[in-house]
Amino acid sequence: MKILWVFAHPERRSLNGSLMDEGLDELEALGHEHRVSDLYGMDFKPVVDPADFRGVGGAGCDRLFVGDAQERAYQEQRLGADVRGEQEKIEWADVLVFHFPLWWFGPPAILKGWFDRVLVQGFAFGLKDDRGRTRRYGDGGLVGKRALIVTSVGARESGFGARGVHGQVDEVLFPLLHGTFWYTGAAALPPFVVYGADRADNEAFAANAAQLRKRLAELDTAEPIAYRHENSADYDDDLVLSPDTAPGRTGLSAHRADFGPDGRPPAAESKDGTGPRVPGRPSA
Amino acid sequence: MKILWVFAHPERRSLNGSLMDEGLDELEALGHEHRVSDLYGMDFKPVVDPADFRGVGGAGCDRLFVGDAQERAYQEQRLGADVRGEQEKIEWADVLVFHFPLWWFGPPAILKGWFDRVLVQGFAFGLKDDRGRTRRYGDGGLVGKRALIVTSVGARESGFGARGVHGQVDEVLFPLLHGTFWYTGAAALPPFVVYGADRADNEAFAANAAQLRKRLAELDTAEPIAYRHENSADYDDDLVLSPDTAPGRTGLSAHRADFGPDGRPPAAESKDGTGPRVPGRPSA
Repeated sequence: MKILWVFAHPERRSLNGSLMDEGLDELEALGHEHRVSDLYGMDFKPVVDPADFRGVGGAGCDRLFVGDAQERAYQEQRLGADVRGEQEKIEWADVLVFHFPLWWFGPPAILKGWFDRVLVQGFAFGLKDDRGRTRRYGDGGLVGKRALIVTSVGARESGFGARGVHGQVDEVLFPLLHGTFWYTGAAALPPFVVYGADRADNEAFAANAAQLRKRLAELDTAEPIAYRHENSADYDDDLVLSPDTAPGRTGLSAHRADFGPDGRPPAAESKDGTGPRVPGRPSA
Repeated sequence: MKILWVFAHPERRSLNGSLMDEGLDELEALGHEHRVSDLYGMDFKPVVDPADFRGVGGAGCDRLFVGDAQERAYQEQRLGADVRGEQEKIEWADVLVFHFPLWWFGPPAILKGWFDRVLVQGFAFGLKDDRGRTRRYGDGGLVGKRALIVTSVGARESGFGARGVHGQVDEVLFPLLHGTFWYTGAAALPPFVVYGADRADNEAFAANAAQLRKRLAELDTAEPIAYRHENSADYDDDLVLSPDTAPGRTGLSAHRADFGPDGRPPAAESKDGTGPRVPGRPSA
């Protein structure tokens, strides 16, 4: 497999930097190809600005919506070389790894800007299928690829659990997992999270590194988060869950096909093990 | 009142730019003072980098966690003038307005970087109360202030409803509303969202502007989102909801004290109007 590792930490000699070394080492041992976008090392520009739409729209550009201006610049091959370079890496890759410390419950600005500038309309989304439907949520420019978040937090794991004060980690990361990966068609793998990162000693680091290596060994076989497909009977024409889909349920977990009617994960993840089996997966 | 309006759009002559004009005009009509941080106009640097910690830690700085380095730079008054300037505006303000187009279900990188660089440990969080407890979620450096998101999306409102494909808008914005505002002690007002922004004609703009003016007139009286306080009986020592708090419930709405046991909003917001009344609020 081909893996693009997008790294967004200001200091290469950090816990995350060392963790990336372990990860890349494991990818080589597994016989995978990899490329790295070290955003700080590249001095990647995170800000979408008119320089990104060079010449698009001319004097009337100020009336264009940013998404439209980006799409025209993409179509007319006017996007900057840095953006085109990242798009080429995405096209090359089977798996995208996004590795960053969690700041304010999201990616650092330099990585947020990578999404803002690289995943432009016409490339990653805004495409139509042969029935004229918008390809989105389970389909799009990144369909067929997998995406994995590798992140670190200072907090303990309990605070990011199903009833933890910070919010369940998959739901806090919903804008990335569902709103970015799944939106553009990429399958979202369950995120890999290092907890207690600011108290990690050598022993904790070794344990985290071993867990990461295990996750990387399963990159091609791991079950992605089973978000629902927009172009399915699960949603109606107003993009609302159909009455028969997760009836009566609200909350972000209603958009997961693998969660039970109680809004909780099934089987192995449920405390009593009595949850329904995952649709489309053989019962184990 | 004193209002800091943080604006993050690349084009001042845009729907959002015009909407800010309307908003500032209304603030003046209401007799409020305001200051504007136009992040694009200021060419605000969004990237946390070692230049932010000038001289902190010396040769050993690479081993410091970013949060610790930021805190030391703050304590030693070594943060850059741009960051200190924003912190002074925050200290001055009663209300913070964050105005941005929603990109990838979050703020543009230039605004994400404002949070990353300005809300440093020791200033916005990481403070202790007189009982030695961490001041967080309902308490912190921004306690007593209110925060309002003003944002725009291309999507229709249905897609951001309780069962909409994008996720309910307050839950999608949880990293900001709960993880940033409430985390630092600021009360999070319900976000103001312009839907269908890329199809808005003059009539739609006028309606949006009128709604925004109404929301601004209620800045000091509007009921904030009733998130739970960390330092209360609602959470246990592991920062997990106590068994008696929202028993059995999971999902981000469990952290709202104003939601009923079914995880749905009460009273006016519920379809049948039979939801429980909001705790701590007089019945209307």
